[in-house]
Formats: sequence, structure tokens, C-alpha cells
Amino acid sequence: VNKLKQQQHPLDFVFKPRSVAVTGASPGKNGLMFLNCYINSGYKGKLYPINSRGEDVCGLKAYTSINELPEPVDFVMCCIPNTAVPEFIRACGDKGVKVVCVFTAGFSEAGTEEGRRLEMEVARAAREAGVRVVGPNCLGPYTPSLGLSYTVDFPRESGSLAFICQSGGNSVSTTREAAARGVRFSKVISYGNACEINECDLLEYLDQDDETRMVAIYIEGVRDGPRFHRTLARLCERKPVVMLKGGFTQAGGKAAASHTGSLAGSDLVLDGVLKQAGAIRVYSLEEMVDVLVTLYLLPRPRGRRVTIVGAGGGSTVLATDDWARNGFVLPQLPPAILEELRQSIPNEAGLILHNPVDLSMFAFGPNSEFFLTTLVNREDFADLTVCHQGFGQSGWIPSDTTEAVLDNAIDAYLKVKSKADRPMLVVLQHLVSGWDWQKGVEDVQKRCTAAGIPVYHSMFGAAKAVDTVLRYYERRNKGC
Amino acid sequence: VNKLKQQQHPLDFVFKPRSVAVTGASPGKNGLMFLNCYINSGYKGKLYPINSRGEDVCGLKAYTSINELPEPVDFVMCCIPNTAVPEFIRACGDKGVKVVCVFTAGFSEAGTEEGRRLEMEVARAAREAGVRVVGPNCLGPYTPSLGLSYTVDFPRESGSLAFICQSGGNSVSTTREAAARGVRFSKVISYGNACEINECDLLEYLDQDDETRMVAIYIEGVRDGPRFHRTLARLCERKPVVMLKGGFTQAGGKAAASHTGSLAGSDLVLDGVLKQAGAIRVYSLEEMVDVLVTLYLLPRPRGRRVTIVGAGGGSTVLATDDWARNGFVLPQLPPAILEELRQSIPNEAGLILHNPVDLSMFAFGPNSEFFLTTLVNREDFADLTVCHQGFGQSGWIPSDTTEAVLDNAIDAYLKVKSKADRPMLVVLQHLVSGWDWQKGVEDVQKRCTAAGIPVYHSMFGAAKAVDTVLRYYERRNKGC
Repeated sequence: VNKLKQQQHPLDFVFKPRSVAVTGASPGKNGLMFLNCYINSGYKGKLYPINSRGEDVCGLKAYTSINELPEPVDFVMCCIPNTAVPEFIRACGDKGVKVVCVFTAGFSEAGTEEGRRLEMEVARAAREAGVRVVGPNCLGPYTPSLGLSYTVDFPRESGSLAFICQSGGNSVSTTREAAARGVRFSKVISYGNACEINECDLLEYLDQDDETRMVAIYIEGVRDGPRFHRTLARLCERKPVVMLKGGFTQAGGKAAASHTGSLAGSDLVLDGVLKQAGAIRVYSLEEMVDVLVTLYLLPRPRGRRVTIVGAGGGSTVLATDDWARNGFVLPQLPPAILEELRQSIPNEAGLILHNPVDLSMFAFGPNSEFFLTTLVNREDFADLTVCHQGFGQSGWIPSDTTEAVLDNAIDAYLKVKSKADRPMLVVLQHLVSGWDWQKGVEDVQKRCTAAGIPVYHSMFGAAKAVDTVLRYYERRNKGC
Repeated sequence: VNKLKQQQHPLDFVFKPRSVAVTGASPGKNGLMFLNCYINSGYKGKLYPINSRGEDVCGLKAYTSINELPEPVDFVMCCIPNTAVPEFIRACGDKGVKVVCVFTAGFSEAGTEEGRRLEMEVARAAREAGVRVVGPNCLGPYTPSLGLSYTVDFPRESGSLAFICQSGGNSVSTTREAAARGVRFSKVISYGNACEINECDLLEYLDQDDETRMVAIYIEGVRDGPRFHRTLARLCERKPVVMLKGGFTQAGGKAAASHTGSLAGSDLVLDGVLKQAGAIRVYSLEEMVDVLVTLYLLPRPRGRRVTIVGAGGGSTVLATDDWARNGFVLPQLPPAILEELRQSIPNEAGLILHNPVDLSMFAFGPNSEFFLTTLVNREDFADLTVCHQGFGQSGWIPSDTTEAVLDNAIDAYLKVKSKADRPMLVVLQHLVSGWDWQKGVEDVQKRCTAAGIPVYHSMFGAAKAVDTVLRYYERRNKGC
């Protein structure tokens, strides 16, 4: 952990602590959950369990208090009862701890005078003790390069997306889904009520962080509007930013206050701030993942001409509607390509050789690779290739050939990707593939994303995300 | 098959044939696919395989031609080459066959002069021979009460939704998904190019069909505009109609022409026709299924006051936004209920006792039933209960308790349903539950739908569908 020795930024102690202590690390307690996750994710620094009886856990020597620790740790995960937190932070300050991350809830989000008072006390204790505080009411950092993770299933490999998320649950589901679709992270943080370290501190950190190439934000409330505007605008100049505001309706804003003690503010004002800064605004986690997958994995298409290639007449018609209504055009196939395709296939009904192309049952055979590569590798007639087909068993494909069908499809996609001179993406639709989704489709998705092919779960979602990202690039080019 | 003996409507021979012959019923041919599906779905009438060698298949005596059959069958599934179809229809007329369903493609949808001519010949042959024709380029009927199905996995039980669908693939995916979520069908038909029996004939049949209580339509082109308008308006007066127009964009319209030979027409005109008739228009298959599930399973809520109950702070905030932006309101919980809940639970942080309610980790315990029933069974403070929680394993729920968690959730949902004096629905989100979707969530869905609880896969989709259906009921009440 040589590189950890030179700390350059105060928040490096949040994302790259050299040592971590966990309170409440005993069976049945939340602290043990964190300790288990840190161990399982392969945390590279030193780990110190703390529990009231000093019972060793997970093969690690335990301590009964923060004072007892043999060194002033960089980071403490704090899972003690809410009323004890301010005192605990002062004790951490005495010990020389750099950061306390407070998992415990029951502060401003409780909506009580007592909760608000307690949260102000935490912030004051942090200031007075010289300790930085993440939370309360949060899960803390995930830094794959350091093997630090608060779940057992986030990827161990690093990437270049940073995600700051005010909700622990949303950070888990979004990170997991984006990871399953090929996105890798530099840093993720669930930061909760943000009583001390807030979203602006985090965004400033990510702005100067060389490992971070793009930023996603889930936020329920902004603590300091003007500073947020300045910070976001500066960050957007250097890195793409995708943001979801939770609680943007009046009722949702009230719910956000109960969740992270956030003050919602005017959504119109926020929308103006995001537009002026040049951030990409999304309205659901699904849309956020679609946009992140696009930014992360899809090379920038030079224009809006798409070739849609798939199997299924009706789904091809609907796919065309979905791309058309998101501003894309479907150019005609060049005559030379059409001729080559026509000569090499039987004159079988059901096969539609226009754009959109319906390969019909041929999509499931070994020839699909030929069709696809022929379609995408000749001439400059399109900017993007969209591949789709269902993998469910309707009885039309004998189940003993299902595996061969999946292999053919994946081979075709990978060959297209490796040979293509233009971006391509794959859409695997739950509704089209039906209940066999998990069995085969997860396999297709894994192998596609491993090869760097962006995968989407809805045709409309894919078209909308690519449109969103193209409009982002166009705005950037115009400098507005 | 006593009830089949009295045929009352000419199209009864389409949906309730007393006997079926299948051409091309030999290994490797499409006819065998249909034969297998009819046998596996338990078709109650007589089945006659036809193949060129007269080889018995599936334990059934086979015939070499339509002439050879021992009786004039009601329905023939025709899978012979396109150019031979007109002659075949005449032979069927000579034999006294009532209906020929043409699976074969390569007619007007091919976009060639030859294809168009051939399709006109089919229509003429049908008229002259006194045979009704379904298709060409289609999969034909699914009538569960008769055990007649063109897939191996559609439900055997009957229901009251009829679905006429111009695309075979879309009919399969939509029927399968709606069935998995508790909808059951009176009749489904994939009717292809509609060169003889068209959408108006089918809608008129469904209008007088007592087994059909509501109708779904996937259509790519209308053959006779004025008649369609009249027929739809009449049908809508008696039964709810949900319609998806495939190919409503310009590019999509071209794709539809290549798929079913349809002429798209003006989408503005169509939209006016649908509005005037009072049909519910949807724009994707996912949205169609959400609306059908709502119409089919959700008792009509008396108003727009929802209680949202789930687990996960962030997902609860986003759920609130989704319902609020679809026109719903979240009333406050009555003080008596709040008091009762507060007294019976530990003062645990994370639990949010407002509306929306975040049960946090309690949602996964045996107390969830108590919380839910307390929330929904007292006082008249809301019109609809929305339940949601994730079932993925993030490491926070030990995997050995997963089954207990699922059981607790299902028990709670079922108890709420059986005791509740107001409608309730369950949202199982793919993104929230992650990759464990298939394992546990399919089980939750199955048990919920078996109990008549509508299940949705997206919070926004659920809110939008309930809004759509409420607006439909409101229009009906106003008589417009």
C-alpha cells in the first residue's frame, strides 16, 4: 500500500484509507456486516474490529474502544446508537482518526427536533475534533482499487466512473446493475444526510481525481445552492455528469426529507442549474444506468443513421418506432450489400432485407455472423448498428439447440464488434425473451459486456439513452 | 365437444374448430411445430397430420392430401410454399373445409409485384371457394377452452381477455408476459397480412363473444378505415379496448409494410379515431401488459389517494415521484394508525412512518404482515395500496434467510389482499432486485398473481398504467 502513503487531498482518507476500524463488529450487529464486506472485497489496508466485549471476529483481533487501537486509523465505520455518536466523534478526534463514517440513522431525517439537534451536534463535534464525517445514515465508500466495498458483489476491478449517491439502497442497485452491464467504478459513495462532508466536497474531490473520467449523482437535496452551482459547472467543463434528483415532485420532496433530511428546493431552479452547468439530467435509475452504459461503453456515433438488425417482425417494427421517435433515421441498405446478402441466402419467406433487417430464423443459425458482418462492415451508410433478438423458448426453437443458438448469437455480436468500423449495441428485452431471461440472456449479457459491447434491456431505453448522449456531445461541441 | 356442434358465427370455425388438419406435418417442417403445439396444449377436437409421404407422426395417422381426409375439417393450418397456396385453398373448398390459416410468408409483405399478386390470388381463391382465410404470414388462433395453442407454454385455463395481434412474435411475447402476471385469455389470434379475414371481422366477432370481457389489439395497418372506426366505436361501448399501433412513425410504417404488407396511414387520423371511439392507446408492449394487468386484476380504485409501503429509502423516494407525476396524491397516515404502529415496533432508525412508509429491514421480517395489514385495514384514508421491496442479496440479508424473507413478504401481501377493503398492487423491480430476480422474484410473482394481486416490473409503469385506467373509467362515466 505504498501509494497510499502520500495523501494529497483530505478526502483521500474517505476513499483511500490506509486503515479502517469498524464498531459493533460482533455477531448480529451491523458492524459485522461491514467488516465481512471489507474482508470479502479484499481490503488492502489494516482492519480493526471494535466490539464491547473485545471478542475477536473473522480471525481478527478485536478492541473494546477506539482508544485501545494500536494506531490512529484513517477511517472508522460507526454503527453505534445515534445519541452516542457526537461523543464518539470527539473520542476519534483525541485518537487522531481522520474520517468517521456514520451508518447510524435517526438524525435530521427522523423529522424530530431531537434528530435535528443530534445531527447539528455531530457536525459541531466533527469541526471541534478535527474529524471529517461521512453521513450519518449511509453506507460509505466503495473503492475497488483498494478492495473496499460495502457489498459482497460489487466488481473488484476499477473503472473510471464515480458515483455519489445520497441513498444507500439506490447506490447498491444502481452500481450492481451498471456493473452487470460493463461499467466499472473509480469510487462510489453512499453519503446519506451529508451533515459535514457534503455533495460539493465530494464533487470537488472527483473533479481533481485522475481516476475519475465521468460522474453520476443521485441527490435528494442540495445543502448550499450557489456553491453547488459553481462546483457542478466547473466539474461539467471537464467530465460528463449524469444526475438524478430524488424527490423532485412535491410529495417526493417530502419523502426525501424523511429519508435523508433533505430540503428539496425548487425543481425549476434545479433544472436551470443543471442545464446551465451542462449536466445530463435523468428521471429514473433505469434511465441513469442506460445513459452511463452509453457514455462508458459506446464509442461516439458520428451521426443519427442506424441499422437495426434482429429477429422478429413485430419487435423489429416496434424497434424502428422507438429509434425514429428518438430522432434517429434508418438509411437504405446499399445495393451492393443487398445483392451480396440475397445471393448467399435461400429465398426464404420471413427474412426482411430492408433496414430494419429482420433475419427471422436465420438470426438463430450459424449464418447470423455472416449476415451481421456483411451488414456492418461495408460502406459508410450508417453510424450505429442496433442488434436485438429474443432468446426465450416458445417451442419454435427446440430446447436442445438453445445453447447453440446463444453461442451463434454471441459469436456474431463479438465478430461484428471486433470487425466493425462503427459503434454497435445489443438490446436484450425481458418481455421478448420471457421467463428464460435469466438462463440464457444473462450469459449473452456477460459475454457482450466483457467484450465492451453496451447492452440494454429496453429498445426505447437504448434509443433514448443514445439520443441523450448525442445531444450532450452536440452541446459540448457548441460550447454551451 | 358437444358445445362445438352448434356453430353460431362463421368465425367460430377459426376459434373453435371441431377438427384441425396440419400440412407439412413431418420432421424438420413447420407443420410439425404446429401439430406438436396442438397436441401438447391438449386440443380437444380431431387432429389430422398431412405430409407428402403419408408418414404417421406423433402417433397420429397421416394423410398425403386434403382430399384424402375422412371428413371436411373445420380448420387447416397451411404451411406449404407460397405459390401453391391459392390452389390449395381451392382444394380445401372442394373438400368442404371452413377455414384455412396460412402460416406461409412471402406475400404482400415481400414488397414485390409477385407477392402482392399472390396475396390477391389467395383472397380471390378464398371468395370463390367459399373458404375463410386467416393470414397469410401468421400463427393463427389460441383458444385455451379448446386446448388449441401455437406455443407450448401458454396457460391452459381460459380467461376473459381477447387479443388480436398482427404480429406472431408480438402475440407470443405479450401473451406470455401477461399470462405470467395473472391475465387469462378467451381468444388470441396472430392474423398476419389480413388478406381475407381482417381486424374488423375479428373485432365484430369479439364484440358478440360472451367469453370476451376486454380486448387488446396490436395492429400495423387498417384495411378499411371507415369500417374500422365504426367497428371499434361499437366495441368500445361494451368492452374496454387497449390498442398498440406498430409502425406509427414514418420509418416504423415502412417497416410495418415489410412485415405485414400494411399501409400505415396517418397517425394523427388514427389517434383521432381511437380517442373518439374511447379506446386506450399505448405505445409499447410493456405498457400494454401493464394496462391489461391493471384492467384485468385491479379492482377500480375510488380515487387517487395512494399509500406506498416498501423497503428502501431511496426507492421509496423515487416511488413517490413516480406516483406523484402520474397524478396521484399521498395522504397522511391517520394518527390512530401511526400510534398503533409506533407502539408495536422498536424505536429503530431507518424505519419511516410517514406516507410513503419505509419499513426498512422490518419488511423482511415476520412482522411485515402486521405492519401492512394495520396500514391498509383501518379507516378510509386511501384508495390504493402500493407494495414494493427488493429481493436481491446484497450481503445484507444472509442467504440462508432468503427463503424466509420471501415467504414473509408473500404471506404479508396475501393477508393484505384477503383482508383489505381497498385495491392493492405489488411492484417487483428488476433493477432493485438485481440478478437474483429470477430465483426469488418469479416465485413472489407467481404466488401474488395466483392470488389475484397485480404485479408490475417498474414503479413508473405501474403508476402510469393505473392512471391510464382511471382516466379511462372517468371518460366512461362522463359518457365520452
